[in-house]
Amino acid sequence: MRNVSEPSNRRDQRAIDTTIAVLATKFGNRLVTSRAVCEQHGNTTSWIANEPPDAVVFPQNVDDVQEIVRTCAAHRVPVIAFGTGTSLEGHVNAPLGGISIDFRDMNNVLAVNSADLDCVVEPGITRKRLNEHLRDQGLFFPLDPGADASLGGMAATRCSGTNAVRYGTMKDNVLALKTVLANGDLVTTARRAKKSAAGYDLTRLLVGSEGTLGIIVELTLKLSGIPEAISAGVCQFPSVEAACNAAIMAIQTGIPIARIELLDELQMKATNLYSKLSLPEAPTLFIEFHGSPAGVAEQSARFGEIAADLGGSAFEWATKPEDRTRLWQARHDAYWAARALRPGAQAFATDVCVPISRLAECVTQTQRDVAAQGLVAPILGHIGDGNFHLALLVDMTDPGEIETAKMVCERLVERALAMDGTCTGEHGIGEGKMKYLAEELGAPAVHAMAAIKRALDPDNIMNPGKIVPLG
Amino acid sequence: MRNVSEPSNRRDQRAIDTTIAVLATKFGNRLVTSRAVCEQHGNTTSWIANEPPDAVVFPQNVDDVQEIVRTCAAHRVPVIAFGTGTSLEGHVNAPLGGISIDFRDMNNVLAVNSADLDCVVEPGITRKRLNEHLRDQGLFFPLDPGADASLGGMAATRCSGTNAVRYGTMKDNVLALKTVLANGDLVTTARRAKKSAAGYDLTRLLVGSEGTLGIIVELTLKLSGIPEAISAGVCQFPSVEAACNAAIMAIQTGIPIARIELLDELQMKATNLYSKLSLPEAPTLFIEFHGSPAGVAEQSARFGEIAADLGGSAFEWATKPEDRTRLWQARHDAYWAARALRPGAQAFATDVCVPISRLAECVTQTQRDVAAQGLVAPILGHIGDGNFHLALLVDMTDPGEIETAKMVCERLVERALAMDGTCTGEHGIGEGKMKYLAEELGAPAVHAMAAIKRALDPDNIMNPGKIVPLG
Repeated sequence: MRNVSEPSNRRDQRAIDTTIAVLATKFGNRLVTSRAVCEQHGNTTSWIANEPPDAVVFPQNVDDVQEIVRTCAAHRVPVIAFGTGTSLEGHVNAPLGGISIDFRDMNNVLAVNSADLDCVVEPGITRKRLNEHLRDQGLFFPLDPGADASLGGMAATRCSGTNAVRYGTMKDNVLALKTVLANGDLVTTARRAKKSAAGYDLTRLLVGSEGTLGIIVELTLKLSGIPEAISAGVCQFPSVEAACNAAIMAIQTGIPIARIELLDELQMKATNLYSKLSLPEAPTLFIEFHGSPAGVAEQSARFGEIAADLGGSAFEWATKPEDRTRLWQARHDAYWAARALRPGAQAFATDVCVPISRLAECVTQTQRDVAAQGLVAPILGHIGDGNFHLALLVDMTDPGEIETAKMVCERLVERALAMDGTCTGEHGIGEGKMKYLAEELGAPAVHAMAAIKRALDPDNIMNPGKIVPLG
Repeated sequence: MRNVSEPSNRRDQRAIDTTIAVLATKFGNRLVTSRAVCEQHGNTTSWIANEPPDAVVFPQNVDDVQEIVRTCAAHRVPVIAFGTGTSLEGHVNAPLGGISIDFRDMNNVLAVNSADLDCVVEPGITRKRLNEHLRDQGLFFPLDPGADASLGGMAATRCSGTNAVRYGTMKDNVLALKTVLANGDLVTTARRAKKSAAGYDLTRLLVGSEGTLGIIVELTLKLSGIPEAISAGVCQFPSVEAACNAAIMAIQTGIPIARIELLDELQMKATNLYSKLSLPEAPTLFIEFHGSPAGVAEQSARFGEIAADLGGSAFEWATKPEDRTRLWQARHDAYWAARALRPGAQAFATDVCVPISRLAECVTQTQRDVAAQGLVAPILGHIGDGNFHLALLVDMTDPGEIETAKMVCERLVERALAMDGTCTGEHGIGEGKMKYLAEELGAPAVHAMAAIKRALDPDNIMNPGKIVPLG
């Protein structure tokens, strides 16, 4: 038994230096302490300040990870998992310093079980590489957050993205995990069976735990068959409300939409400029259907009727892969398009999620708030889930504007919570949204989370300072 | 802070008596201590011995539940949630005595949000009553375990059933829970947003925790629209393997089957006898498709082609509600039909789940084992998930036969585990399968579960002796 002690809540440079020395003897040039590399591993793609780790280590297998974690545990030094660094709430920051574990070299597909529609992968593989690997077998991993994120990071942040309305989020698409806990134990959360009622759902507890309970070293993922037919289209609506109502009607009547994305007027303007399109600058839905040829034709026709009833434009359908790709590339480039609206400004993306019945209200109130503050901030949303993003374009040389933008984000969260929504649908808590957790779920839920954290990580070495407060 | 003490692992009658006296003053005749009522609340519908609680209390609201739990906590007395008592692994047993909380009177629908496809219910409502309530709005809660279980119990045991292949299990259909923890805290696990990345997934941790971490007092459930068209059919195959391959092919090609149930030769014999049908006594699939009229027609046709390729019989399709009901009634009566195969015998149902590619092998090996032991034990399975049930018909006056039956169950679990499966797909661990948990997931996973249990329930008062060992 370890002695009972307070979890560490301050940087212990001596312990960190000792840990680095120990790891260096084992990992040689797979341990890097250069300032540039460390800063890159604390990169937050947000306005949260960079808090670099003290060293980055590149494991090659599970044993390596266990050794790193045990070494850190022995010295009570923070350990932070790193995939591709595309998270948005400061998840990879090292507020107390410590060791970043970069999974770049653990990127193999270990098995594909096509009859079972599953595969086993290492955490460092990115979703695009995985899908290239799977394509020949007619399979794909459907989740698509836009960025070419690593599967380990996607699981750790409970990622979802454009396909989630049909295929679910990471909680629905991870069958099992192997995870190294703070004590160095390697935990298997589940077998490869498609479902299980055997004990606590450690898989789902770890999915979305942001590296604060354990470090994911292997994932068993649910796969889907590549649809026989895919049809994608774009449709403009007279208002955000009409677009949201079309989504509600379609879902209520059971049309199995694969993607349904809302881009507001401003985002459409940005997309036209950036992607050299000439679509009307009105609230627009980007939609995709998956199924058999007859199935997608029927889905498209039924959705078209709903859209027409709500004042939507005629659809333009793209069934050829190259046309679909161009369409979705424009959607995926929305972030870059938004940035191009205001050259020189930084873009900060935040997200909330509300019951879909409240979505139109939440979006339009947010648009009004943005306009009242004189900010530029296009909106796009995974509308089928009630989830949307606000991309604030901020002049980082203007402290007053930064402050105003932060207040708009704050009010966005308050608005979502007041509508029975969540402060984050898919970006996670990280450092950026810790202050909202108690407001969203109440103190008892946060106490329960902290109790679980203490139970599995008594010294608070696993990505400290994320989700639950330090110490 | 409470004093550090060992969790209780023995019955403390004095503490129990004191607790009952305290509760009696508050609950009057809503507290019952009669032997018959207590025994009914320890009924396990299994061969696990009846271990009755010392009293049963019938709360009417969340405050009542918090008061009961706080009273039990003050005296460190076990507290066990009770829905309808249809669980199969001794979940409601009281090995250390204590207080059973029967949710019979907390059975209201608190809200239906049709645009958001969700509802909020009290834990005591049964799935049939909920679906009656929802029908007028064109909505339904799809999970169907056969028994008319309570929603609280279904969540606590991570129930799935015949529709899970299409609609998922309780982990996929519970959006949020309100739960009373061992310290009396009322925890809200999530808001009504369809997805969230806000902190640890307490919802999924509690779903399937069998009342050992907290007592569910309110559920927000995901609903589905009643399909426009439903088509159901029956098809015989030359072998279990051919039937399994049909399921694999159908799922791989993306046919969105709503139910696909395997009944083996013996189960078909039983079903014919009991339900007065005259279907061939061969491995048989009961199948159902949900969708638009054109969609189910297409799905049926495509499945028909797959079945024909694998030697399946021509399908008989039932699209009229009364014909479908008769068909599925026969499937749902499988348990009673099995019992009728051997009048006077008791029927014990166990379940395992394996990757679907191993299902045929697992079923046929099990059939051979049953035959070699001279037992009577029909098989039926939720084949799309790789999950199946063995119903052992046992002469309870014959200790040798009981022992043989238990050994067959033991070997069934070993077989499933050797095939990368789980010891239970949907029945849960309860008392009956605790011994397999470490074998399935390894000691580190069970240690992690025990650490979580201790963190949230340090005195081990929440349904002790289930999932994780006592003390």
